[in-house]
Parts: sequence; C-alpha cells; structure tokens
Amino acid sequence: MALVNHRFTLASRPVGMPKRSDFAYEEETVRELREGELLIRVLFISLDPAMRGWMKESRSYVPPVAIGELMRALALGQVVASKNSLFAVGKHVSGNFGVQQYFVSEGRGLIEVDPGVAPLPTFLNILGMTGMTAYFGLLETGQPQPGDTVVVSSAGGAVGGVVGQIAKIKGCKAVGIAGGADKCRYVVAELGFDAAIDYKSEDVAEALRKSCPQGINIYFDNVGGDILEAALANLARGARVVICGAISQYNVTGPVQGPRNYLSLLVHRATMKGMLVFDYADRYAQAAREMAGWMAAGQLKSREDIVAGLETFPDTFLKLFKGENRGKLLLKVDAD
Amino acid sequence: MALVNHRFTLASRPVGMPKRSDFAYEEETVRELREGELLIRVLFISLDPAMRGWMKESRSYVPPVAIGELMRALALGQVVASKNSLFAVGKHVSGNFGVQQYFVSEGRGLIEVDPGVAPLPTFLNILGMTGMTAYFGLLETGQPQPGDTVVVSSAGGAVGGVVGQIAKIKGCKAVGIAGGADKCRYVVAELGFDAAIDYKSEDVAEALRKSCPQGINIYFDNVGGDILEAALANLARGARVVICGAISQYNVTGPVQGPRNYLSLLVHRATMKGMLVFDYADRYAQAAREMAGWMAAGQLKSREDIVAGLETFPDTFLKLFKGENRGKLLLKVDAD
Repeated sequence: MALVNHRFTLASRPVGMPKRSDFAYEEETVRELREGELLIRVLFISLDPAMRGWMKESRSYVPPVAIGELMRALALGQVVASKNSLFAVGKHVSGNFGVQQYFVSEGRGLIEVDPGVAPLPTFLNILGMTGMTAYFGLLETGQPQPGDTVVVSSAGGAVGGVVGQIAKIKGCKAVGIAGGADKCRYVVAELGFDAAIDYKSEDVAEALRKSCPQGINIYFDNVGGDILEAALANLARGARVVICGAISQYNVTGPVQGPRNYLSLLVHRATMKGMLVFDYADRYAQAAREMAGWMAAGQLKSREDIVAGLETFPDTFLKLFKGENRGKLLLKVDAD
Repeated sequence: MALVNHRFTLASRPVGMPKRSDFAYEEETVRELREGELLIRVLFISLDPAMRGWMKESRSYVPPVAIGELMRALALGQVVASKNSLFAVGKHVSGNFGVQQYFVSEGRGLIEVDPGVAPLPTFLNILGMTGMTAYFGLLETGQPQPGDTVVVSSAGGAVGGVVGQIAKIKGCKAVGIAGGADKCRYVVAELGFDAAIDYKSEDVAEALRKSCPQGINIYFDNVGGDILEAALANLARGARVVICGAISQYNVTGPVQGPRNYLSLLVHRATMKGMLVFDYADRYAQAAREMAGWMAAGQLKSREDIVAGLETFPDTFLKLFKGENRGKLLLKVDAD
C-alpha cells in the first residue's frame, strides 16, 4: 500500500510567536504494518496552548519535541488497516497521533471512542483532555462549594468555557474573563455564565471588584500575567487559585511576568495550586460519563471551532494566541 | 503617679529602608488608671519583619499604623499597677503594647506568662508568635511527612531557625538558606540543620539541586525574590510552598518581584499557600506546651538577639533587613 502521509515537523524552536518557517511540511510513504500494529487515518487534531510549551527546549512535564521530529498533538482518527486483534478496521480512536494524516500505532495509549455517544469532535473537547482538564481542575484542585464565586480566564476558550459551565452545575456563581464584547456575550448568553469581563476594554481588577463583592473563592487561571494579578488582588479569605496555564506568557521572549502581588496569598490565606490532567487518567472514564450526562441533560454545551486542511496548521495554531477561537480549536485534516 | 512614658510614633511612611526620621521619639505622662485597667511596664519588645508592612499605607491583614500613632509591636511586660482583679501587680503578660515603656491596658488581649516555665524572652520567641508561626506554618500549612526534604529561608532568623528544628523533630531533612558563612555554621552546628546554603556566596538554585537530589517537598519562605525562584526551580512532585513572608521585598520602592517561574507549580503539581499565625489562636496554648516539652528535652533551642535601650529602636529594627540578627531580635526597654 503506497500510501502517502503528510506531516508537520518542528524545523526550529520558535522565538516569540511561532512562524510558518518554524515548521516543515513533509511527505513520506506510510510503511507496511508489522504484526500487532494498526494504521490510523487522522480525522481531527486538537490544537492546544500547551503545544507551545512542547516546542521549547527546556524540559517541562514532558520532554520537548526535538528539532526535525513530528509535532506532537492529541488527535482522533479511524482505523483503516490493522494487524492488531484489539482494534478492528472502522473503529474510532484518540491518542497522541501528532500533526499528520496517518499514524502507525502499536496499539498502546489508544482510547476507543464511540461515535454513537457524541459527535467525533466532542471526544477531543468535552469528552477529551479539554473536558478532563476543566473537570478535574475545577472539582479536584478548586474544590468548589455551592455559593462560591468562581472566576475563569479565557472563558471563551476551550477549557475556560467548560469550567464556568461546571461551576454553574455545582451551584456556584461563574464570572468569565474574555477578550472583546462578542466573546463576552457568548460566555453569558450561550454558556450561561453570570457575568463576563472584557479584558480588552475594562479594568479587570476594578471589574472583578464590582462583580465579586464577596471576593473570589476560586480563580481558574489559563492566562497568567496582568489578569492573574487582577484576580489575586480580589481574593476572598481561603481562596483557591488553580494554575492550569499561562497563555499570555508562552510567547514572551523576555522573562515571564511572575505575579507581583503573590503576597495576597498570605493576606487572604489563599492557595495557588498547579494541576496537570494526566494525574487523573484512572478517572477519565468516570468523568466522561458524568459530563456526557450533563450534555444529554442540556446543562453542558460542547462548542468547537473547526478549521479544515492539515496544511493550514501553522496559521490555524496561532488563532489560540490571537484569541480568535471560540470554544475548542480543532484542525480537520481533510480540506473538504 | 506622675510617671513618664517614652514611645516611638510613626512620623512618616518610610520609602525604602526606614530612616530615623520616619519615627518620632515622644514623651508623655502616664494617665491615671480607670476601674478595670492595669498598667504594664514593658520589658521586651519583639522586632519583626511584619512591622515594616504595618508602616505601609495599603491595608493588609491589619490596618496600617497611622501617621502620628504609636508604632505597633508585640511585647512582654510586668503589671506595676492594677485596678483589674484578673491581673495582679507583679504578673507578667504579653500582648500588643507598642514601642514604648508603659502600656495602659483594659485587660483584653493579654496573655499571662509564667517566668517559672522559661526565661522571659522565650515568650516572645519560641513560646510566642515566632514559635507559633513556625509551628503552624510548618505543621499545618506544610504538612511534613517523615523523610521529606524541608528547605527554609532566613534559617538564621527567628522563625526560620525554629522551622528547621521542628522539621528535624518530625523526621525530615532540613536545609537552611542563610547569609554568610558564620550564619550557615550556626544553622548546622547549633540548630542541627542537615545543611546550609550561603546565599551571599553560592548559586542558591545550583546548591539546592545538590543538597536536595530528590527535590524539595516543603519550602518555607520568609524572603521572596530570587531565593523563592531558586526554590521553585527545585520542587519535588506535590511540593508545598509555605508563604510566611518576603523580607527581600518589604523595602523595595519599585514593583515587587513576583516569582517568574511560578509555572513550576503546574509542572510539579505543587501548592503555594499563604499563612497567618492569628488563624490558629485557639491552639496557641497546646502548641506552646508541645514546644516547651521539646525545649525541656533538648530538641529545640531558643536563641534571642537582645539589644538594650528603647531609644535604639529605629537602628535596631534595621538589623532585620541587613540580616544582622542571629535568632529572634528583641529590644530590651531598659538600657542597662
């Protein structure tokens, strides 16, 4: 089977915002399957802020992507050939397939998905790592109590939108921070947040003071920088600050902006805690069942921003940093 | 009784390091006692980094000291006149008496101390707020487990020295960070830490990497700034960072240095938590009993750095910020 695979490799370590030339678009022939292997045709690729971290030289919670190596990405695909008895042709699976059209798997690290339960993109969104991050980050790290005020940054983004919706399900007040009037409307009108703050036109610290008169009980941070500081300035006693990401800092070429008012943690006896979704792998299935139930009951909406065409990857990826995506950003491998 | 009281009031809000002229040395006549009041002759005054925060205009966990107001300070004294049946003349008490010679009390907020249990200075050190801060900060906020590696900054200072000793009692490895070879020797030889790092002559991040090969399980921070960043760079998975103070930042006139590598909390699933000793007021007595037991057993040493003469206050206070004190810094009110 002389099948051709196209893929993006990392050509150079980006300085600041990644450029087209930081990636190489390559063509290769898909090799023959060995015993136990299967061939997956990639349908959707998850585009996540964390991928920017994987492009950096420094080791984080996973090793960096090496220069010349396939760009790492979570994805979802369909088995199109198989010499593995566990995965028959036609099955849908998700896993770390990378930014490419075809993935040869030895059958390890695959999660089977059932397209009868939800549309395929949902498995990279609410029923995938995005949803799991929101679920465990809010419920386990944040420990919400009914009546708590929960503030979420990147509320119009993938994780943030889910966090606010789960906060509402748990009886909390949800306040979102997002960029632009349109996104703020979306956060309140479509996702059901109680309020939204437009960081592009409002003084966030001042707006938080008004919308959270009792202070913030949980701040779920996806952005870092000035917005993290604005939240720290408005904590309630005993607040929990969940550090999930810091998209405002991923492309800075100078030093990262550490929260200058971190002593607010002392004044308010507050906790700042980092979370990584992988620590909850043994509970993904249970969480996905609960979230599927909330979706079926109309309490939780899954929204994806799908861009078609593998070759658009370098530009499409940047939508995350320009704040252009609404909901979960996915790359549909086929152009049509 | 035409008794004269000398006291220091706050004359102006210090910019950077406090100066002599930021305080006014005043003389007044002690007024007659009303029914229920008692007169305390102040013997020892506790000098603490937190006092620098109380001189700032911004409200923290307590209101600032107003301009012209008596400078706030914890102290210990003896009842010399009393119209309060609960506190007889001759009793020793501690409380918030301020930087002065005499304090007229209505009998509220006083803690009676028994000079038969320990020397008087100990009640402002290990058996006072200093000891309570170390005890609850380490044991409650830090949650040490036997075998943990505990790192403490300002290890030669009042709180830090106690934290390291309690860590050893709890079966942990204790690593201190202090300024200068003499202090490092003191921390290891006298206080029994396993190792000490001299931040004045060593690369702290590198030294922590060597002395904590498994990473830091608990970092007890009294200093902030570069040393906090060096500790964050060396956390173990699930580490607890106790934010007790940030003496390196109290006198800065520009923006506070927030920890630029705070995303280490995410990478290591670590927690940074602020603590204030006042939250544990209902457990002070129990903690003091346990600490007195450790002292009696020779497991815990109380060391004070006592400077005589109330009028030396402005200069003596600065010893804290110059790192000149060894152990708890106290002002003895009488010059002889």
